[in-house]
Amino acid sequence: MASFNHFLSLDEETASRIAELFGTLSDTTRLRIISVIFTSEQSVGAIAEAINLSESAVSHHLRSMRQLRIVSSRREGKHIYYRLDDSHVADLFQKGLEHIKHD
Amino acid sequence: MASFNHFLSLDEETASRIAELFGTLSDTTRLRIISVIFTSEQSVGAIAEAINLSESAVSHHLRSMRQLRIVSSRREGKHIYYRLDDSHVADLFQKGLEHIKHD
Repeated sequence: MASFNHFLSLDEETASRIAELFGTLSDTTRLRIISVIFTSEQSVGAIAEAINLSESAVSHHLRSMRQLRIVSSRREGKHIYYRLDDSHVADLFQKGLEHIKHD
Repeated sequence: MASFNHFLSLDEETASRIAELFGTLSDTTRLRIISVIFTSEQSVGAIAEAINLSESAVSHHLRSMRQLRIVSSRREGKHIYYRLDDSHVADLFQKGLEHIKHD
């Protein structure tokens, strides 16, 4: 594989950033938020209702996730809508799910 | 998407197992181990040398990773060889790397 040497020389900063990304995903509430916005953007209120958590708690998680570009947001009037930032995040979630489901 | 309802109803046990998987991957040493065995199996000694860590420390990480089926092992004489357990793990690593590299 052409990228072998690239992977072999995974530098500390890159490793550290990937570790931070996985660390942010190692939380059941954040995973449930991801599952809610997996196919379409949702308002903070709708997410909070779907996972039965307060809007302030959900907002707190969404801010952390936005910093790592796991989610992105769009304001419309009084509401803020969140969606997965890109397909990598959806892939990460799906591969994680597939991994624990396969036997 | 047909699987929407499935994701929406992410149950606590499934969320917890995915969180545990990502938590195990949120460690720079483990990510460097994965990078070393990304394309081919390697002995514990070779992995330790590649990432400049003691064999006992590497073995400790590999045991945790084997429990979560991130890696699997094969014994040949005195040596134990480790490889990524399945393509999901390689995909997780690659998607994580792609995510932090894209701007």
